[in-house]
Amino acid sequence: MLYFSCDYAEGCHPKVLEALSNTNMVSTPGYGEDEFCKAAKDKIRKYINCPQADIYFLVGGTQTNQVVIDSMLSNYDGVIAAETGHVAAHEAGAIEYSGHKVLTLPHHEGKIHADELSDYLNTFYADENHEHMVNPGMVYISYPTEYGTLYTKTELETISEICGKYSIPLFIDGARLAYGLAAAKDMTMADIAKYSDVFYIGGTKVGALFGEAVVFTKGNTPKHMITQIKQHGALLAKGRLLGVQFDALFTNDLYMEMGRNAVELANAIRADLHAKNYQLFMENPTNQIFVVMENKKLETLKNEVSYGFWEKYDDDHTVIRIATSWATTEAAVNELKKVLLHTN
Amino acid sequence: MLYFSCDYAEGCHPKVLEALSNTNMVSTPGYGEDEFCKAAKDKIRKYINCPQADIYFLVGGTQTNQVVIDSMLSNYDGVIAAETGHVAAHEAGAIEYSGHKVLTLPHHEGKIHADELSDYLNTFYADENHEHMVNPGMVYISYPTEYGTLYTKTELETISEICGKYSIPLFIDGARLAYGLAAAKDMTMADIAKYSDVFYIGGTKVGALFGEAVVFTKGNTPKHMITQIKQHGALLAKGRLLGVQFDALFTNDLYMEMGRNAVELANAIRADLHAKNYQLFMENPTNQIFVVMENKKLETLKNEVSYGFWEKYDDDHTVIRIATSWATTEAAVNELKKVLLHTN
Amino acid sequence: MLYFSCDYAEGCHPKVLEALSNTNMVSTPGYGEDEFCKAAKDKIRKYINCPQADIYFLVGGTQTNQVVIDSMLSNYDGVIAAETGHVAAHEAGAIEYSGHKVLTLPHHEGKIHADELSDYLNTFYADENHEHMVNPGMVYISYPTEYGTLYTKTELETISEICGKYSIPLFIDGARLAYGLAAAKDMTMADIAKYSDVFYIGGTKVGALFGEAVVFTKGNTPKHMITQIKQHGALLAKGRLLGVQFDALFTNDLYMEMGRNAVELANAIRADLHAKNYQLFMENPTNQIFVVMENKKLETLKNEVSYGFWEKYDDDHTVIRIATSWATTEAAVNELKKVLLHTN
Amino acid sequence: MLYFSCDYAEGCHPKVLEALSNTNMVSTPGYGEDEFCKAAKDKIRKYINCPQADIYFLVGGTQTNQVVIDSMLSNYDGVIAAETGHVAAHEAGAIEYSGHKVLTLPHHEGKIHADELSDYLNTFYADENHEHMVNPGMVYISYPTEYGTLYTKTELETISEICGKYSIPLFIDGARLAYGLAAAKDMTMADIAKYSDVFYIGGTKVGALFGEAVVFTKGNTPKHMITQIKQHGALLAKGRLLGVQFDALFTNDLYMEMGRNAVELANAIRADLHAKNYQLFMENPTNQIFVVMENKKLETLKNEVSYGFWEKYDDDHTVIRIATSWATTEAAVNELKKVLLHTN
Repeated sequence: MLYFSCDYAEGCHPKVLEALSNTNMVSTPGYGEDEFCKAAKDKIRKYINCPQADIYFLVGGTQTNQVVIDSMLSNYDGVIAAETGHVAAHEAGAIEYSGHKVLTLPHHEGKIHADELSDYLNTFYADENHEHMVNPGMVYISYPTEYGTLYTKTELETISEICGKYSIPLFIDGARLAYGLAAAKDMTMADIAKYSDVFYIGGTKVGALFGEAVVFTKGNTPKHMITQIKQHGALLAKGRLLGVQFDALFTNDLYMEMGRNAVELANAIRADLHAKNYQLFMENPTNQIFVVMENKKLETLKNEVSYGFWEKYDDDHTVIRIATSWATTEAAVNELKKVLLHTN
Repeated sequence: MLYFSCDYAEGCHPKVLEALSNTNMVSTPGYGEDEFCKAAKDKIRKYINCPQADIYFLVGGTQTNQVVIDSMLSNYDGVIAAETGHVAAHEAGAIEYSGHKVLTLPHHEGKIHADELSDYLNTFYADENHEHMVNPGMVYISYPTEYGTLYTKTELETISEICGKYSIPLFIDGARLAYGLAAAKDMTMADIAKYSDVFYIGGTKVGALFGEAVVFTKGNTPKHMITQIKQHGALLAKGRLLGVQFDALFTNDLYMEMGRNAVELANAIRADLHAKNYQLFMENPTNQIFVVMENKKLETLKNEVSYGFWEKYDDDHTVIRIATSWATTEAAVNELKKVLLHTN
Repeated sequence: MLYFSCDYAEGCHPKVLEALSNTNMVSTPGYGEDEFCKAAKDKIRKYINCPQADIYFLVGGTQTNQVVIDSMLSNYDGVIAAETGHVAAHEAGAIEYSGHKVLTLPHHEGKIHADELSDYLNTFYADENHEHMVNPGMVYISYPTEYGTLYTKTELETISEICGKYSIPLFIDGARLAYGLAAAKDMTMADIAKYSDVFYIGGTKVGALFGEAVVFTKGNTPKHMITQIKQHGALLAKGRLLGVQFDALFTNDLYMEMGRNAVELANAIRADLHAKNYQLFMENPTNQIFVVMENKKLETLKNEVSYGFWEKYDDDHTVIRIATSWATTEAAVNELKKVLLHTN
Repeated sequence: MLYFSCDYAEGCHPKVLEALSNTNMVSTPGYGEDEFCKAAKDKIRKYINCPQADIYFLVGGTQTNQVVIDSMLSNYDGVIAAETGHVAAHEAGAIEYSGHKVLTLPHHEGKIHADELSDYLNTFYADENHEHMVNPGMVYISYPTEYGTLYTKTELETISEICGKYSIPLFIDGARLAYGLAAAKDMTMADIAKYSDVFYIGGTKVGALFGEAVVFTKGNTPKHMITQIKQHGALLAKGRLLGVQFDALFTNDLYMEMGRNAVELANAIRADLHAKNYQLFMENPTNQIFVVMENKKLETLKNEVSYGFWEKYDDDHTVIRIATSWATTEAAVNELKKVLLHTN
């Protein structure tokens, strides 16, 4: 069976495992107050060129979105997101559970449009009844988006400016940040830090066993952040596990190296799909590929390839996701190409 | 100044005030455990032809929606509503505050379409990732809708059947129920009770000082309902005030008589608007009229008539709401007609 | 049947009813943006000698406690209260429902002791693990307390100073404020305003149909307060009903006059109980009297007097509450005295 | 520096690390739907002699308590716990954050007394106002308790019977279950399963990198449990990491072997402390030792031993915690004994 269903099907990159093994019997204080966390944070601060960055390590993506959004918003605030945004669609109501509405904008290949954001905010404040409505308290986007697409630097800058104009923080979900940056032509992690008020660097999908690094970039950390993390059940006792892993990810450019591996192999698969006239549901430059497949062909494919169900396309077709990752090998991609030869 | 801005601009119908005055110095137990509440509930049960109905009196609409939805849903549930539904748009996030997502469907003049509801539910259960999504745990509609439109009996029956098929309760918000039923050709309050699992009879907008009567129609009252109401800060100490008012509303057909007054006068205004070539934003048969007005004409109008801001139409036009109510008089309507003569 | 079970058994003071009747058909904007509310607020500001006071009218006590506490606290905050405080014991978890822990201190006849409050705060901040604990974010007391007792001016001043030292707001629940102030030797409502950061003036139990006036005394109103009230389901559509009532309460000293009536008659009953050797559960100077009664005597008493169940005393005795109010008459007290003659 | 501050200062037992390493590059489905989780659950079911057990793996203790309590309780329910219980005191309000009050009972060396529990429940239901109070919906205890003490089998059986009588589930927090069972004379994990309705087997503090296994023992799993876990931000993407670890913990009796190591070494330290006349704050048989120390002696001790701050004893003394664990060695204990010689 070839595994292309997701980018979190294996454990962690061997160098991360090595770091965990090497430090396993070291005794440290709990809850992230250890030297490994400190070192990892220093490396990240340097890498993103943001000396004032305040960094917290959490375990998973939904947890991170919930904690960041709830700790930054007041009771009366909601968060603006694309209708396809992860927080809007695929987190089982974790944001609403914490009391906040997700205010949705239309998506354009997974992205929100700056002008629609601007219109939304203008209309809201022009509405004489807006005190009876949920206050827009944050803008959430992801890089890459749910469909693997990327904001250009200009798009990001414009959204950031709109947020600034309305004094609303911009939160960038970077669950797959390495895959986005590896595919982008003109974007660095320092840019992400510059344009956002808070963002996170995804580890779970990029070579860590688990872990996301939340970065408050503008001296804007919510008060009593440790208490808030604990209150959400999100404070890891052995916090040092996150420090050790992120230290490894940010040593010798490992994080971006893994990003490049996934994107190069995804590009190879995309080229092959095009050559074989497969129908792509949406074009994107990152590690996820969305293919429209006949249902009867899936009956065959599923015996050889583990892929992800994405959504129903029509009665006879389904959109599937093929994802590469840090763990994907050229050999596996070549095997996949062979399978793709006879399933279309 | 002529008041047509809303249907809650005055106190209460004189007969309701008389009932409150007559009973004012009677001593009763608190929290709705009094004889007035008992009598009012009996009258309602009889009126809606639903002997098993379990009835609770609450103070206002948003409170009622919040308490009903939160008490009937489990943690993992959300409520399906039209994107224009009151719970989706104009309750300041009261539903999300209680932990539940409002799952929106497109609106068609304020109504949801049965086939789109059916599609939504089919697609949800067909999605292999649906355990990562908010469970659709209730359908919320209002009668009349936010735009004053009405579901036909067939439409209501079909939605009710879909809910039954998926074992999801149907909740009908009747904040303006009298105005809906007075305008409907073939719908009674007994029908509303029959097709819904829970609904409420609005008093605040129909002649009471305040008050909404929640009716659980199918022996389906949530457990410890009094505790849940109290927990939401919604248990009125002098609950008897609600009983006294609803008793008056359901004596000598007062509730529907007030409904008819508002609808007849709204129809008179509508006829006049049509005759004078005003542009209606949306046609509907109930007590609210939505008119598209030039902004510069509003500058004049607002000195003579208190109307409701509804929404921006374009840069030069605004949608305003003209609402009649139980308190509207023919004299006031005639005055309004005169004003409308020179403002268009 | 003589009614002494509570202070909310009747409707409202005739002067309040008269005000409601006189204004009944006046058309006003909704949600408290009317002239009646404005006038009532002006009167209160003057009465409490606090020109900067920001005032909001809500419907009931639990609702008010929930809205005030939740709007003033951050996620990580809890509220300190006596273990017998209303928010701790008798509000069905309304505070926890809004996400906040009630941090309890021992009670001394219903009151907290300043030194125990001080110890609590000192110990909290000295605990190296306090970031893993709920942050004390407010102190809640009531005047009078749950047992009808009163803080002296010195006690109140000391508690206020401790709150100031720790930058924690002091919230005074005045559900029965008139009964407390009428019984106090040296306390005015202006003192309550001075020592508190926020307090409320109870109307429900003192002659209004319903209504509590929340007063933010230090320019410290939470942001978007109207949105927060709406979000809790606590924004009354016909807000003017609250303005009309509080205007009446603060006209010609009616509020305090009603307070004095209740306290004088309670004192008369207390004197009679002492004279007849009844056992009082707790001495207090306000409108509630707690009497320890043999259960078998209650069997007789309950046929003639409606009293409140307070708590079990032992297997053979029960603590009952006898409450006077604005509505209690001297005639009723004389009748009660007769009954008390033969039930002990 | 000798580390005795807690039982989560190191990574994981070498055999757990070996299992993680061996399976690292295996591709599996996410979210716990893998073969490793399945195998681990089978082993646990067999070990606890409970074939119907339904098992979920979560990451940490506070998270587990929050998810279990919130998913089993209804809105109107609170959870009964000792005032010193972890959920009451040291979880930053995580239970209240999810809307539920922690109803506290006095503690007796960390334990609740069955008769006080029974009294609490009797009194609650006898209170005529109990619908205005938080409903007792669950009993939470921990084994061992916050002070390392243990319930006897009789005590546990009695509490279980009381819960059964009131149809309230009994939840046993087993964050340190191995250390409790290793110290108990007559208790097995099968007994824990038998007497509880839900319990968890702690991994974080007993040799896993992280992880707690929640066991629903009576066919009483809350509906849509995966959705509820996700909604709390508690669903681990690489769920297999938990399966792999628990499989290792339940292979060749590793879990209990680690428990015995910690208890034996704790006993050795306790014997030494007694011999050297140290004052123990509380006697208990498990892996945590609470010692009352002069503050000035701590100034010396802290340079050689990392211990845990527990609480202030008086102005001159502090209670410290010395904890052994699966990772503690006899050599370290001997070093500690030397240090203890000169610090008293």
